[in-house]
Amino acid sequence: MSQAAYDRLTQRTARLGALGEAAAILHWDASTMMPKGGGAARAEQLATLAGLAHEMMTAADMAADLHIATTETAWEAANLELMRRAHLRATALPTALVEATARANSACEKVWREAKAKSDFALVRPFLEEVLLLQRETAQALSAATGLTPYDALMDGYQRGVTAAEVEPVFTAYESFLREALPRAEEIQARRGPPIPLPGPFPTGKQRRLCRNLSVRLGLEEEHSRLDESLHPFCGGTPSDVRITTFYSETDPAKALLGVLHETGHALYERGLPLEYARQPVGQSAGMAAHESQSLIIEMQACRSDAFLGFLGPLLERNFGGDPAAYAPQNLSRLWRRVERGFIRVDADELTYPAHVIVRFRLEQAMIAGELAIADLPGAWAEGMQYLLGITPPDDARGCLQDIHWYDGGFGYFPSYTLGAMAAAQMMKAARAAIPNMETALGKGNLKPLVTWLRANVHGYGASLGFQDLLRAATGKPLDPMDFQAHLRARYLEGDAAP
Amino acid sequence: MSQAAYDRLTQRTARLGALGEAAAILHWDASTMMPKGGGAARAEQLATLAGLAHEMMTAADMAADLHIATTETAWEAANLELMRRAHLRATALPTALVEATARANSACEKVWREAKAKSDFALVRPFLEEVLLLQRETAQALSAATGLTPYDALMDGYQRGVTAAEVEPVFTAYESFLREALPRAEEIQARRGPPIPLPGPFPTGKQRRLCRNLSVRLGLEEEHSRLDESLHPFCGGTPSDVRITTFYSETDPAKALLGVLHETGHALYERGLPLEYARQPVGQSAGMAAHESQSLIIEMQACRSDAFLGFLGPLLERNFGGDPAAYAPQNLSRLWRRVERGFIRVDADELTYPAHVIVRFRLEQAMIAGELAIADLPGAWAEGMQYLLGITPPDDARGCLQDIHWYDGGFGYFPSYTLGAMAAAQMMKAARAAIPNMETALGKGNLKPLVTWLRANVHGYGASLGFQDLLRAATGKPLDPMDFQAHLRARYLEGDAAP
Repeated sequence: MSQAAYDRLTQRTARLGALGEAAAILHWDASTMMPKGGGAARAEQLATLAGLAHEMMTAADMAADLHIATTETAWEAANLELMRRAHLRATALPTALVEATARANSACEKVWREAKAKSDFALVRPFLEEVLLLQRETAQALSAATGLTPYDALMDGYQRGVTAAEVEPVFTAYESFLREALPRAEEIQARRGPPIPLPGPFPTGKQRRLCRNLSVRLGLEEEHSRLDESLHPFCGGTPSDVRITTFYSETDPAKALLGVLHETGHALYERGLPLEYARQPVGQSAGMAAHESQSLIIEMQACRSDAFLGFLGPLLERNFGGDPAAYAPQNLSRLWRRVERGFIRVDADELTYPAHVIVRFRLEQAMIAGELAIADLPGAWAEGMQYLLGITPPDDARGCLQDIHWYDGGFGYFPSYTLGAMAAAQMMKAARAAIPNMETALGKGNLKPLVTWLRANVHGYGASLGFQDLLRAATGKPLDPMDFQAHLRARYLEGDAAP
Repeated sequence: MSQAAYDRLTQRTARLGALGEAAAILHWDASTMMPKGGGAARAEQLATLAGLAHEMMTAADMAADLHIATTETAWEAANLELMRRAHLRATALPTALVEATARANSACEKVWREAKAKSDFALVRPFLEEVLLLQRETAQALSAATGLTPYDALMDGYQRGVTAAEVEPVFTAYESFLREALPRAEEIQARRGPPIPLPGPFPTGKQRRLCRNLSVRLGLEEEHSRLDESLHPFCGGTPSDVRITTFYSETDPAKALLGVLHETGHALYERGLPLEYARQPVGQSAGMAAHESQSLIIEMQACRSDAFLGFLGPLLERNFGGDPAAYAPQNLSRLWRRVERGFIRVDADELTYPAHVIVRFRLEQAMIAGELAIADLPGAWAEGMQYLLGITPPDDARGCLQDIHWYDGGFGYFPSYTLGAMAAAQMMKAARAAIPNMETALGKGNLKPLVTWLRANVHGYGASLGFQDLLRAATGKPLDPMDFQAHLRARYLEGDAAP
């Protein structure tokens, strides 16, 4: 047993962390800056970094050190545990499978872009079949190594420690809730009448400045962040150099604005990770559900609250002008908290969003279990949407072709979105209890009390706690979906006085 | 003996090439995009990439394969030779020396920025002493491995195969030439009277568009390049994704404009490298002197020619307006081909630039030989400037503190600038002989004939030829400094009719 072995391991994981950071910047660059002609070389660069990382993670002396390493603190112990876990997952997969998966995902993703544009599922079907075949093989291999079920083993790669058996009753309960809540929310909404559209125009330059200023006001330091443009908004980069992106529409400022608030939530999480464990496994985020909870607590819980909209309305009016009534917080809440049975997940409101996730969760479990063939996916999708939201997509572009995830080999990711939404509600409830003047602060556009609370109760834990333990530490209990339901009831089912 | 060994080596060097490309993008990002707070993490990322590359290059199985590898074509043979050379240079240096050098350079460079700003040489002196100590040790180690003299071994790292013994007579001859030419050029210039300054204003946005358009017109494809801003202009990125930068002054468009033409020359070289050897040693440029020849043939030889100024003048007038006389090619040539005994190398004209290089070449040889102590550097610098240009810097900021090179561990680089200038003149002479309608094309702002010639006679060789062999292939003879003198005589010593 040896503390020296642990020290050697941290040197190795520091290098792995640095490689990961380099890859993160290169990924960001590919989506924001890279000229088109750089794509092929970039793929080589990223494949090389990934290959080297895989070799380092599976090296024999790494395995030897993992066996004998001992630690002195709880943080070190958590770090070592995460190293063991990463090593186990990496060695579980034969190199040939890893390489075949990378190739198949990349080929499928390329064809998917065309298939989606043409709404032609048949075009991408054989590619997705190949991707699924390899994902099933991967799931089997990870299952054999970890003792998890194959689907759980995949999900574990996105959000450590959460299982389908845990998620299933949560989602089933939500289905019942939705069946009752959705028609009522629609009815209340109809009674209120339609919102006044924001008058515009919304020049991109003005939007950009406003978004950046808001992001900084929320606590994202200019010295440690960038805001750029990309086709699909994301938060990338590294904890000391976080890079968020958005997409500006000159006719609707809400997309960029709310998108930036969302990505700022992700970015604040990255900024709050424990600096003393930078580039170590335990210094990373707790997983994708935890990450989504941080974007949603900022965007959905804080910034779409009545209090914050009361701050945001006048700010927007000063920036864009026109009919003042459009900027009244009540009107903004009708515009930006509008419930709608839509086909597209990324456009969905808080209430119906979980339905989109539940459909995908059921379908991907069936696919990984070999119970749903790719050929039957469009039909099963349509059935799921009809069952949960009472609508049937008119085409596959608005159905099973809409999301990149599966076509890029991402199975087991979708539940993170809704687990994150639920965790956000639960954390916000705890934060409100801990911060008596929260509403006043939000009404002044001041998120400092909330972000300070998140730093201490969420961000600062890094990956030392899993999803459920993180919730326990922050809120005193594991995931409690009733907090999310209570939030939705207050916001969508109780007339105009919702918080 | 084994072709399989060669194939294994190319796989290894392809990975090394990909790591180098990743580092190039990260370096570019650090100078153009990175928020200040990302600096420490970026240093870790780059150090990790460099460390991994060093390990791969010095690995035992690499050495074994280099011993037994055989090749089938001349290109493969050249590639193998470059691998052996890189391996030899990498293994010659103990890891401890490499790491100490990286630390010392980084520490010194940081202090140098402050010392330069304050013109306080004493501040940086101990740091530069440490840097020099390690450079001398490095030079000794490389000398022992390669059989070159210590200084040549350093120079060889920037421009393979060129020795001080070869450079010395070239520079001595230039000193004599300059002694006669400079006063004559000044006299002719004085007779012509002062130029009319360009009227302005020069809004940055307009300059940016103009620079980008010119760069594209010269042949740099938008799909494979970017133009951004940085404190010091450079050409970075990778051959399929070249990234040039510049710095805009709203009072003088010449800096950005001529700077972009210069960097475009570098970029065109990168774009013209043999694609089938991308990320292989033989697919890279032939060295720093060769690279500088390509920036200078575009900027100095082509774009500052009377013919091209005749195209550029009206274009600038359309963009910026004001007194048309300022845009006349004769006035532009007086503005942009002005000879001046100045203190600053990067601001120097074509005629006096080599004097700046010669001073540094002499001083760095003496420092590496242990014949010049750092304490005596400011005095020796002043003497050199007085001897060659008849001026004495009023302070060290305008003296030995002006360039980053030595303070960042760059000894043996400076000669490349003047070798490049000489090679550019020699290549331009050969290109003019091969392209009968060159002047007409330049007069229309058309560099296609020249760039096509450079592609075939310079760029396409990659690193398969060293500096002298490249010149032989392109011009039929090794470096002939008389071509540069002839160019300078025609442009600066023969009245208004210079080409």
